[in-house]
Amino acid sequence: MSRPFLLGVLGGMGPLATVDFMATLLAATPADSDQQQIPVLAWNVPQIPDRQKALAGCGPDPLPQLLRGIEILNQAGASHIVIPCNTAHHWHDQLSAASRAPVLHMVQETLDDIASLYPRPARVGVIGTPGTLRAGWYQNGLEQRAMTPLTPTARELEQAFVPGCYAVKRGDIETGGAAFARLGQTLLERGAQRLILACSEIPLALRAVQAPFLALTIDPAQALARRCSAIWQQYRHTQYA
Amino acid sequence: MSRPFLLGVLGGMGPLATVDFMATLLAATPADSDQQQIPVLAWNVPQIPDRQKALAGCGPDPLPQLLRGIEILNQAGASHIVIPCNTAHHWHDQLSAASRAPVLHMVQETLDDIASLYPRPARVGVIGTPGTLRAGWYQNGLEQRAMTPLTPTARELEQAFVPGCYAVKRGDIETGGAAFARLGQTLLERGAQRLILACSEIPLALRAVQAPFLALTIDPAQALARRCSAIWQQYRHTQYA
Repeated sequence: MSRPFLLGVLGGMGPLATVDFMATLLAATPADSDQQQIPVLAWNVPQIPDRQKALAGCGPDPLPQLLRGIEILNQAGASHIVIPCNTAHHWHDQLSAASRAPVLHMVQETLDDIASLYPRPARVGVIGTPGTLRAGWYQNGLEQRAMTPLTPTARELEQAFVPGCYAVKRGDIETGGAAFARLGQTLLERGAQRLILACSEIPLALRAVQAPFLALTIDPAQALARRCSAIWQQYRHTQYA
Repeated sequence: MSRPFLLGVLGGMGPLATVDFMATLLAATPADSDQQQIPVLAWNVPQIPDRQKALAGCGPDPLPQLLRGIEILNQAGASHIVIPCNTAHHWHDQLSAASRAPVLHMVQETLDDIASLYPRPARVGVIGTPGTLRAGWYQNGLEQRAMTPLTPTARELEQAFVPGCYAVKRGDIETGGAAFARLGQTLLERGAQRLILACSEIPLALRAVQAPFLALTIDPAQALARRCSAIWQQYRHTQYA
């Protein structure tokens, strides 16, 4: 605990999702003044090759740019690092190995949060990029905790999710929100009792269209933000008391 | 133009205003993809002594912490730096002198924007911290451009503005917004045709309470964001064409 607390955010994926995560961090932290708020250094540099295309085998590798962000955050004094992008967790192991500061894992934080829900849902929907769903992190984690995952079909992902995601990235949040809302509704109709929004473009877009099922959703950025805030509060009370 | 473009944000004053500025930057930048968006490194570290108290002579000097932020942003490769806090422009000269990257000036950008309004308003209200108003940047700039500034009385500042500002900083945005809305309404009733929101806590709070005069306001963060976006687009077309 010798380094002062500084949360490094490896962002830019996408840039609006990073800003949304930073707002979530502030909302998750009890503070009566500026000085009590969580200190953050955010690398919101979106000039990173497209993660979805790379994972689909049709685009350059984003790892070199991700490693550059990790290096700069470490050099600038980050004590902890987060990546508020589910898909980028594909490279979590390599980024973690290259980082002096521990890199928290958004998927693990989310699964831990879900396991503490009461009553625990029997069936949980998961919406995310094809790369995230193919990796199976959320589905495997749910099964290990005795919950049944429900995911969109490959066709639904390609025809509804992917265009919605790129709509948000070009600033058309309403179009993205409408696509995500239809997809979420479909999973709920198939029996999901909760929905994991496993791509950081989804929550901000669903809020923008005021999706009626928002109360049933689980936002990994929220789980990650709560964890960061808890760590900061420990430091704050020891270092700045 | 040898350094790649990277916008350094000296933030944390307050942290929510910094996040709001980052969202404003994205909205001000035309982009069809993540990769076209403006690259930003944001130092959102609010452990900086209170600027208002320092300027009132009753608190420690924030300059050392501000210089530390400038140093880290420069070391990390910032090509340009902005400070999305009006009050902190009190230290702009010293920060600029210590920075390799040019530090844009939010007040100048705003005054340039106002001068290009058509029709040009005859009377412009200015709401900000006592420190910002005492410095007279906006009032002098308006007079030099043949506009008459209107400001709250010292009593209105102390009894309405200052408590509103600290309410936002402790997360009570509605209380702050209500205070700012009353103050803005007062200046409009005294003849202001436009209102400069010369403290970065004001715009987000007035939006939260949906103040009826929002269309008449001028947000310095918007002027600064438009300038940053214009510089980035020049770079983008030369460096990433």
